[in-house]
Amino acid sequence: MTKPVKIGLVQMSMMADPAENAARAERAIEQAVAQGARVVCLPELFLTRYFCQVESAEVFDLAEPIPGPTTERFCRAAQRVGAALIVPIFERRASGVYHNSAVVIDRQGRIAGHYRKMHIPDDPAYYEKYYFAPGDLGFLAVSVEGLRVGVLICWDQWFPEAARLTAAAGADILFYPTAIGWHPDERHEHGDEQRDAWITVQRGHAVANGVFVAAVNRVGFEAPPQGPQRGLQFWGSSFAAGPLGAVIAEAPTDAEAVVVVEIDPGRIEAVRRGWPFWRDRRIDAYGPITNRWGDGPAGR
Amino acid sequence: MTKPVKIGLVQMSMMADPAENAARAERAIEQAVAQGARVVCLPELFLTRYFCQVESAEVFDLAEPIPGPTTERFCRAAQRVGAALIVPIFERRASGVYHNSAVVIDRQGRIAGHYRKMHIPDDPAYYEKYYFAPGDLGFLAVSVEGLRVGVLICWDQWFPEAARLTAAAGADILFYPTAIGWHPDERHEHGDEQRDAWITVQRGHAVANGVFVAAVNRVGFEAPPQGPQRGLQFWGSSFAAGPLGAVIAEAPTDAEAVVVVEIDPGRIEAVRRGWPFWRDRRIDAYGPITNRWGDGPAGR
Repeated sequence: MTKPVKIGLVQMSMMADPAENAARAERAIEQAVAQGARVVCLPELFLTRYFCQVESAEVFDLAEPIPGPTTERFCRAAQRVGAALIVPIFERRASGVYHNSAVVIDRQGRIAGHYRKMHIPDDPAYYEKYYFAPGDLGFLAVSVEGLRVGVLICWDQWFPEAARLTAAAGADILFYPTAIGWHPDERHEHGDEQRDAWITVQRGHAVANGVFVAAVNRVGFEAPPQGPQRGLQFWGSSFAAGPLGAVIAEAPTDAEAVVVVEIDPGRIEAVRRGWPFWRDRRIDAYGPITNRWGDGPAGR
Repeated sequence: MTKPVKIGLVQMSMMADPAENAARAERAIEQAVAQGARVVCLPELFLTRYFCQVESAEVFDLAEPIPGPTTERFCRAAQRVGAALIVPIFERRASGVYHNSAVVIDRQGRIAGHYRKMHIPDDPAYYEKYYFAPGDLGFLAVSVEGLRVGVLICWDQWFPEAARLTAAAGADILFYPTAIGWHPDERHEHGDEQRDAWITVQRGHAVANGVFVAAVNRVGFEAPPQGPQRGLQFWGSSFAAGPLGAVIAEAPTDAEAVVVVEIDPGRIEAVRRGWPFWRDRRIDAYGPITNRWGDGPAGR
């Protein structure tokens, strides 16, 4: 049966040089594994500063195929440390076809799963629709180290459907590699409410689905490379929550951190026996979920 | 355009006598309206003690049609106080066909909407599947007093699909008449976590959909009428939250309360412009939501 597994959340600040970020990520992975982590997750687009603050065609030079140099490097790292990794990649699939992706690498150094971000944001300083085609691989859950691991990326975390479908694929835990922060001029008035909403909606997914969740964010201020933007203050706050939504580990808002926390997938069975939501879903009535808005005559 | 509206949440303890509960509910409605409430919501099955602690065929005597004596009484009350009401009813639809329902009554005293609880629980001391057929009217949003009001009932609150479909029907606010409490022998160890999960999942619905939510619970200990059960300690905690999930009003865990709070449906537009989740839903990929479990080959 299931047994407890330690997971590692790597909250990083990104430097200008991708090679330096890769090396720092490897060191953080080693730290997490030294503390017992069997599955270690890196933040979204960890190789680079958050380039989506502006739209620039040159940025596509940063993309790489899967498999490619970065997956090969981290496949070797996974084998060396003997742990599974969740590694986000700016994926070049073809000329003009790019994705915001992540791979799950097992301890043997094999790519066990490949996820392409399904929900792509586009807001001031988060111009992701310019860079990334929406994912077309659907929702992912793969087994590594005795855990069934679901991977979603950042903006996906606001969509209950993504959590539901990943949990329905058998995930014990939803990992959310993330790059989210404050606009400096909004932080004072709205910052706490925004961060709290972000934590709350993910804790809500844990409760509704009876699964663990783990969000892994970057941290620190990143000035935009050009243009009128004022930069982004990434809010860290990487955290894990249990299947009743309780936060079981949390990183600071303002510093790098390697968080290692034990989770017990056996807890899921107990929680779902106590509150058997999956039994009572009204699958006969959920068809209009695939409408953009409205429900036939009830829509306004 | 929209303007702020005060809503009233009536947190009650139920007596043995339905007539007494009806009279007490009317007085609470009058209090809420005196404080400016334009839409007042009563708790689930407010006419009676929570009879679902046991299965007993005699209990069906308590059910009544819609329209029926209780809706007629509260239609007159709505007209008298000049406010809209959300009134839960143990509905007798036909011999052998009963529902856990609620009606929305407008200030003119007309039934403006009728909802039948879609998700029916069945857990120790919450034997609702014995009493209630699952709802077949779908999800509801109706306009009263300048608010588009969605109504869901208790167990519905754990299902993101119910919140999503009610919001997609145009609801500005999701009202959840409720009857939830602690098993006395679980309260010490799990009580805080259970109550927190209940609040969190509903705040999560507010965030994910950019809507207000309002939960209206009963409060106080109810011994079971018979059998080996140990009774239920209903945890009150009725609350309202805004479209970023922040709690804007909250009742105590251990006392009756009439909570009146102003909500501004215009806030929804601002919140959804800031975080435009509705734009990015992957309606092409949500079809498997209508599966019980699994997603084809990814299911385990």
